[in-house]
Amino acid sequence: MKKIQQLLILLLFSCAYTVHAQEEKVDLEMVSKIRNEGLNNSKVMDIAFNLTDVSGPRLSGSSGLKNAQNWAQEEFAKWGLHNVQLEPWGDFGRGWEIEKSYAAMTLPYYQPLIGTPKAWTQGTNGLLKGKVVLVTIKMDSDFADYKGKLHDKIVILDNEIEIKPHFTADTKRYEDKDLEEMAAFKMPAQSNQAAPKPRVTQDFRTRVALGKLRDFCKEEGAVLIISGGTRGSDGTYFTSNGASYALDAKAVLPEFEMAAEHYQRILRLLNAGKTVELEFDTKTRFLQDDVKGYNVIAEIPGTDKKLKSELVMLGAHLDSWHAATGATDNGAGSAVVMEAMRILKALNIKPRRTIRVALWSSEEQGLLGSKGYVKAHLANKETLALLPEHEKLSAYYNLDNGTGKIRGIYTQGNTEAVPIFAKWLESFKDLDASTVTLKNTGGTDHLSFDAVGIPGFQFIQDEMDYGTRTHHTNMDTYDRLQADDLKQAATIMATFVYNTAMRNEKMPRKKTKLTTTIK
Amino acid sequence: MKKIQQLLILLLFSCAYTVHAQEEKVDLEMVSKIRNEGLNNSKVMDIAFNLTDVSGPRLSGSSGLKNAQNWAQEEFAKWGLHNVQLEPWGDFGRGWEIEKSYAAMTLPYYQPLIGTPKAWTQGTNGLLKGKVVLVTIKMDSDFADYKGKLHDKIVILDNEIEIKPHFTADTKRYEDKDLEEMAAFKMPAQSNQAAPKPRVTQDFRTRVALGKLRDFCKEEGAVLIISGGTRGSDGTYFTSNGASYALDAKAVLPEFEMAAEHYQRILRLLNAGKTVELEFDTKTRFLQDDVKGYNVIAEIPGTDKKLKSELVMLGAHLDSWHAATGATDNGAGSAVVMEAMRILKALNIKPRRTIRVALWSSEEQGLLGSKGYVKAHLANKETLALLPEHEKLSAYYNLDNGTGKIRGIYTQGNTEAVPIFAKWLESFKDLDASTVTLKNTGGTDHLSFDAVGIPGFQFIQDEMDYGTRTHHTNMDTYDRLQADDLKQAATIMATFVYNTAMRNEKMPRKKTKLTTTIK
Repeated sequence: MKKIQQLLILLLFSCAYTVHAQEEKVDLEMVSKIRNEGLNNSKVMDIAFNLTDVSGPRLSGSSGLKNAQNWAQEEFAKWGLHNVQLEPWGDFGRGWEIEKSYAAMTLPYYQPLIGTPKAWTQGTNGLLKGKVVLVTIKMDSDFADYKGKLHDKIVILDNEIEIKPHFTADTKRYEDKDLEEMAAFKMPAQSNQAAPKPRVTQDFRTRVALGKLRDFCKEEGAVLIISGGTRGSDGTYFTSNGASYALDAKAVLPEFEMAAEHYQRILRLLNAGKTVELEFDTKTRFLQDDVKGYNVIAEIPGTDKKLKSELVMLGAHLDSWHAATGATDNGAGSAVVMEAMRILKALNIKPRRTIRVALWSSEEQGLLGSKGYVKAHLANKETLALLPEHEKLSAYYNLDNGTGKIRGIYTQGNTEAVPIFAKWLESFKDLDASTVTLKNTGGTDHLSFDAVGIPGFQFIQDEMDYGTRTHHTNMDTYDRLQADDLKQAATIMATFVYNTAMRNEKMPRKKTKLTTTIK
Repeated sequence: MKKIQQLLILLLFSCAYTVHAQEEKVDLEMVSKIRNEGLNNSKVMDIAFNLTDVSGPRLSGSSGLKNAQNWAQEEFAKWGLHNVQLEPWGDFGRGWEIEKSYAAMTLPYYQPLIGTPKAWTQGTNGLLKGKVVLVTIKMDSDFADYKGKLHDKIVILDNEIEIKPHFTADTKRYEDKDLEEMAAFKMPAQSNQAAPKPRVTQDFRTRVALGKLRDFCKEEGAVLIISGGTRGSDGTYFTSNGASYALDAKAVLPEFEMAAEHYQRILRLLNAGKTVELEFDTKTRFLQDDVKGYNVIAEIPGTDKKLKSELVMLGAHLDSWHAATGATDNGAGSAVVMEAMRILKALNIKPRRTIRVALWSSEEQGLLGSKGYVKAHLANKETLALLPEHEKLSAYYNLDNGTGKIRGIYTQGNTEAVPIFAKWLESFKDLDASTVTLKNTGGTDHLSFDAVGIPGFQFIQDEMDYGTRTHHTNMDTYDRLQADDLKQAATIMATFVYNTAMRNEKMPRKKTKLTTTIK
């Protein structure tokens, strides 16, 4: 029995050894230099400051996004990066930004309201005062109840919730057990892997109803809609758009979202039969001089005769929502990939493959910037045609899960990438990054690459207060950025990119995915 | 050995028995009725709704406080309470309230700012736009640096802080060990009991410096001061006054406090040499038609021939700060004492002693309402004269530590009260209230009674998010009130008041305190 146990242990160790042995030797001296530059000479917080506090909110097409794109280009050029450019990825639509936002309750008493116009909605253009009507639509026939009753009225939607006390902390890091679970994850069998069919979700139904309701309110002569009010607390609210950014989108009513505490108070007063009067003074601006969308691109050219036409990419989306400065979504990722490039350039590395960084735009509207890039450079999903760069791109690394440090990496089911990343992460165990999981993660720009068979990866990051306080909120400000976390992330990002650029082979690709996506 | 142990245990039990046996029998049938009315037929949330959402912010002397005082009187009268009145306690000064509050950053980009005028400061009375100057005063000689530089400028004080992520929960309840510690507390020896001497605290030094700075800014022609910015996060900020409520207080500059995230952003931009321009439109109103302060008083008359001239009192302060509706400070306590009266009246109790409820005002300016009441009814601290009611008042019960349920009671060193309360709390162990501590607790209106030798008690309440989110913040709204906690508190409050009214003897008084305070 004992002998069998020993044999088993030996076998396990051999397997582990074999797996790791498959990956080439890592240049540990360079990793050490990257660590020193990234951890001790960091500029990541200064970069983040310029992208957030200095540039402002970076909604697609806004002046804030342009500020940040311009600053990033200047900075890349200052560092001596090559081919620095603002590359159009296609037509986006209208930019939009806020020029004034004031809201207050005036009856039953005065109280300024915390909130913001919803993106792409019209402003009131001057002081608007009105009584509030609570509108509840559960089925189409309910509209009749409000016919003739909304003229000159402010409409508030019936989004009642109970704001619960916070008995758990807003901010958390992954615990060992969470990471162990991720590391142990096994991909389901192929037959179970079919993409889930689109289904009519609660959210979808709500959107349809909301669209109808908006039209109805406009037809009836209402003057403003208050929506939202269900997420966030303590002055933090979650924001979104209230209309389309399309060039031909019709003008909508001013629409406002606000702190749940203020929203719910209005509902309670109305439900108790009290008269509630509000005043608004909001002004929004549509920008359509240039309706294209752009990504910022820059490079460190490859130096190996045979491999320099090949690429490794890193990226993060630079656009944000409008109620704050998008510090964790995704000033953090943008600052980290910029800082990774700065580190590599400061060390004057001579990569074999070309390293290309991208700061995407319009991720928040559906990964538009990275999808546009993929379509122009890599593969056209409609025509199923592969472009020449498709064969040349080794891998794409993305960062977009907030300010939390890197704890490992998602391989999106790429089994061959696992031992490679495991080896690379050996240098970062002391910085708490060691987990490689086969798991997929979604919601950001690596998906655009993964969809056409390019190895595209997002790192595992500590969650911090991303879900509770920062993601799409009015409180996604510079204050949420944790310097030590971002330094660590930039160091690991730079190392992964460097290792990918120096490797003899391109990163292994998932066979299955490529054949199913593009035939 | 064993015998001695048994003896000791027996002795301990006898002591415990003896202690409890000293207290009269509690009318458990009535306690059961009170529990049923308080827990199953509660109106406490409806009362709280009217005191907060419906009445508005209840700063001393404001319309909001008047709304709440009027509503409370009407309600008391509806319930059939006796001697319902608005009793003046003395001169307060000027009331103050906000009629408009708008603030935004306009350079380097547009961003509405979360904040509020500081209490008793002037408004801008129209749109005010100005560049911001960061002022750092560490010693008197620093003023010279700003001479001639503040004209038409908005001044921001150098209150830099780092906003930390919240790795602990905002809300918490007492754990068993906390309560055991309180129960085990022993009063220090008499010699150590001297009241701490007033000392120049950091806070005091800051206030002095701030006063000087305000005068300097006004002399130099600055147009507005931004102060605070160091407490709260995520849209929650703590508020206070920026000027005196005295009738003869001189006019000050408009002063504004704001969310730390917005405050700190302005500081970072200025420290980086950026131009920051802000705009404000604030209007504040001073009310001085009636400069008196008032408490709301109501009674259930006593029915025992000999004892009905004696009193038991319960109370809570009704005034609040101005940036929210003062739900936990102290709408909660006010709603609980009102509900306790409703419960007792609904049960048509026939108390031996008269029960008097008081809703104080101007607690936030130094317990002024309760001090005024004590001076008029009980004892004049200046002349050291005791008034006839001093002998008649058995005890005063106060609630002012937020929305948390009652876990026990502070006896303020009144050792004889301990076994009495321990016995009364036996009926509430299942509702988590069982701790009697000799500890003092401060900061609220029971101190006004305690100071003149009347047994004055504040209950131990679960802390909840009082210190982190609600106490003096812009987010002290109805949403923070926890219905089950307030129902429990009202039930216990009603029982304590009832038991005190029915007891053969008045509550025991602290001998030492009486002789040292009033000779």
